[in-house]
Amino acid sequence: MSLLIVGSIALDNVKTPFGEHQNILGGSAIHASNAASFFSSVNLVGVVGKDFPTEHLHFLKKRNIDTSGIQIKKGKTFHWEGYYEYDMNQAHTLKTDLNVFADFDPIIPDNYKDSEFVFLANIDPTLQLKVLQQIKKPKFIMLDTMNFWIETKKDILLKAINSVDLLVLNDAEARQFIDTPNLIKAAQELLATGVKKVIIKKGEHGAILFEKDNVFVAPSYPLEKIIDPTGAGDSFAGGLIGYLSKTNDLSHANLRKAIITGTAMASFNVEDFSLNRLKSLTKTEITKRIKKLKNITDFELSEI
Amino acid sequence: MSLLIVGSIALDNVKTPFGEHQNILGGSAIHASNAASFFSSVNLVGVVGKDFPTEHLHFLKKRNIDTSGIQIKKGKTFHWEGYYEYDMNQAHTLKTDLNVFADFDPIIPDNYKDSEFVFLANIDPTLQLKVLQQIKKPKFIMLDTMNFWIETKKDILLKAINSVDLLVLNDAEARQFIDTPNLIKAAQELLATGVKKVIIKKGEHGAILFEKDNVFVAPSYPLEKIIDPTGAGDSFAGGLIGYLSKTNDLSHANLRKAIITGTAMASFNVEDFSLNRLKSLTKTEITKRIKKLKNITDFELSEI
Repeated sequence: MSLLIVGSIALDNVKTPFGEHQNILGGSAIHASNAASFFSSVNLVGVVGKDFPTEHLHFLKKRNIDTSGIQIKKGKTFHWEGYYEYDMNQAHTLKTDLNVFADFDPIIPDNYKDSEFVFLANIDPTLQLKVLQQIKKPKFIMLDTMNFWIETKKDILLKAINSVDLLVLNDAEARQFIDTPNLIKAAQELLATGVKKVIIKKGEHGAILFEKDNVFVAPSYPLEKIIDPTGAGDSFAGGLIGYLSKTNDLSHANLRKAIITGTAMASFNVEDFSLNRLKSLTKTEITKRIKKLKNITDFELSEI
Repeated sequence: MSLLIVGSIALDNVKTPFGEHQNILGGSAIHASNAASFFSSVNLVGVVGKDFPTEHLHFLKKRNIDTSGIQIKKGKTFHWEGYYEYDMNQAHTLKTDLNVFADFDPIIPDNYKDSEFVFLANIDPTLQLKVLQQIKKPKFIMLDTMNFWIETKKDILLKAINSVDLLVLNDAEARQFIDTPNLIKAAQELLATGVKKVIIKKGEHGAILFEKDNVFVAPSYPLEKIIDPTGAGDSFAGGLIGYLSKTNDLSHANLRKAIITGTAMASFNVEDFSLNRLKSLTKTEITKRIKKLKNITDFELSEI
C-alpha cells in the first residue's frame, strides 16, 4: 500500500557518552521514513533549507523513499542541538533553530494524495489537520505529538487526534495530557475523548497499546549499550506503520505484529548515531530480533 | 515442597489517596507468605512484640502458614508509617520504629530446617547468611535486599547473594548496586559477580529475569486504580516461590510461569490495603488474571 509520512527533517548536533556528531541527518519524518522503508515505499513530505546536503536526498531515494514532496526553501534546515548524559532516557536540548521549518506548509503533492496509510509525525496539530484535508481516502492514520502542543494547542490537538485511527505519545506526554500519574487511567481517558487507539511509548520499558476492548503490552529489546537514543520513538512509529502498509491488514493481531516490528526497528536505531545502524541493517537481522522479542516474552500458563 | 520465608512482620500506618489505616498487618514476610500460601504451605520466621494482635496469628494459621517460627518478644512490633501521594510509585516514609525487630535473631525451628525452598526477604544480609547456615538441604534460595544494605554492607551482601539461586531487587537498587543507569548492564554485572539469576522488579513496568543465557521480560498487570502499593514486591516474590515450591520444577520454563504467578499476586495485593484483597481472593481469579497476562502480551511473528 502507499504510505505518506509528514514531519520534520533536521540536521542535528548530538552528543552522548559514546561520541559527538555535528549536522547529522535527523528529524521525525526522517527516522520514521527510514524505518518504514524496510517494509514499504514511502511518500515523504517535509521542508529543508538550501544547505541540506544532496547526498542525503540521494540516500533517501535509494531507500525507496520518494523525496519529491520535500520542499527546498531559501534559508537553513531545522537544526537541533542536544546531549544525553549518563542516563540516556533524558535528552537535554541546547538549541533549537526552526529555520525553514518555522514556516512549514505541508503541501501534499497530487501523486501522494491517494496515500492509504498516513503517519503525521510530531508537528503543529493545525498543520496535521491541514494534511488530512488533502488526503482523499486514507485507510489508516497515525498521529504523534509532543508536550509543547499539549500545553499550547490542546483544543486543536484534540480535534486532530479525534480525526485519526491511532495516537502515539510517550509516557510523560500521556500523564501531562490527562493530568494523572497512572498511565492506564491516562490511556482510558484518552480513549474516552474519542480517539480510537492509543499507544503509550515508555522508552526502555516498551510500549502499551490501548483499544476499547484490548490491551497489548509490548517489551522493549534489552540493550546493554545504547549509543544514541535520538529518533527511537519515530523509528518505532515508522516500523509500525511501514509493516501495516506492507501487510494491508488492520486486524488487532496484525497491529500487535506491527508494534513488535516497530520495537525491533527502534532497538536498531539506538545502536548508532543518526541512521547509521539502519544503513547496514538487513531483513534477516530484523527477523532474528523479532524472534528474540518473542522468545524473551513467551510463557506457558501456570497450573494453579 | 516445604517453603521457608524469613523477614519482617509489621504493623503499619499507611495513607494513600484512597484512604488511611492505622496498625494494619504488613511486613515483607507477611506479604510474601500470604501470596505464597495460595500455592504451598509456608514456614514463617519473624519476630513480633507483645502488642501483636492474636487475631493476626489466627489469620495466618488459617492460610496454611505455620506460625510456630514467629518469636514473640517483650516490646512492640516493628512499625512503619508512610504515605503515597498522587504518584503511587513513590513511598514516603514518615517513621520507622524497629522495636523488637532491632534485635531479631532468625532462629530456625528444627522442623523448618529441612525446608527446600527458602525466601530470605529483605533483612540484614548478616542475618540472611545466618539463616542459610541453619538450613540442611536447600533446593532453591531466593534473596531480596534494599538500598540501605547496598550502601552499608555491600561486602556481606555480595557474600549472601553469591550463596543463593536468585536475587530479586528493584530497578533503583540494581542501578545503585552497579552504579549504572542501564538496567540490562546492571543485571549483566550482577551475574558477573557470581549470582546465578537476577530479577529486577520495575513496579508498573513489570520485571525482568536475567540468567547467563536467558532473559525473560514480564509485564505488570495494567491496573487503572492502585489502592495501596505497599507489599507489591513481596507479594510478587511470595507468589513466585510459592509456585516453585508447589510445582517443584526448577526449569527455566517453569521459572517464567512462577514469575507470571508472582506478577498476578502483586497485582491483587495492590487492589486494597494490607492483605485485604487476598482475604477474598480465589484460585479461579488468579487463573483468570494469568490468562489475561498471557492475552495482553501474546503476539505472532511478523513476516518481514
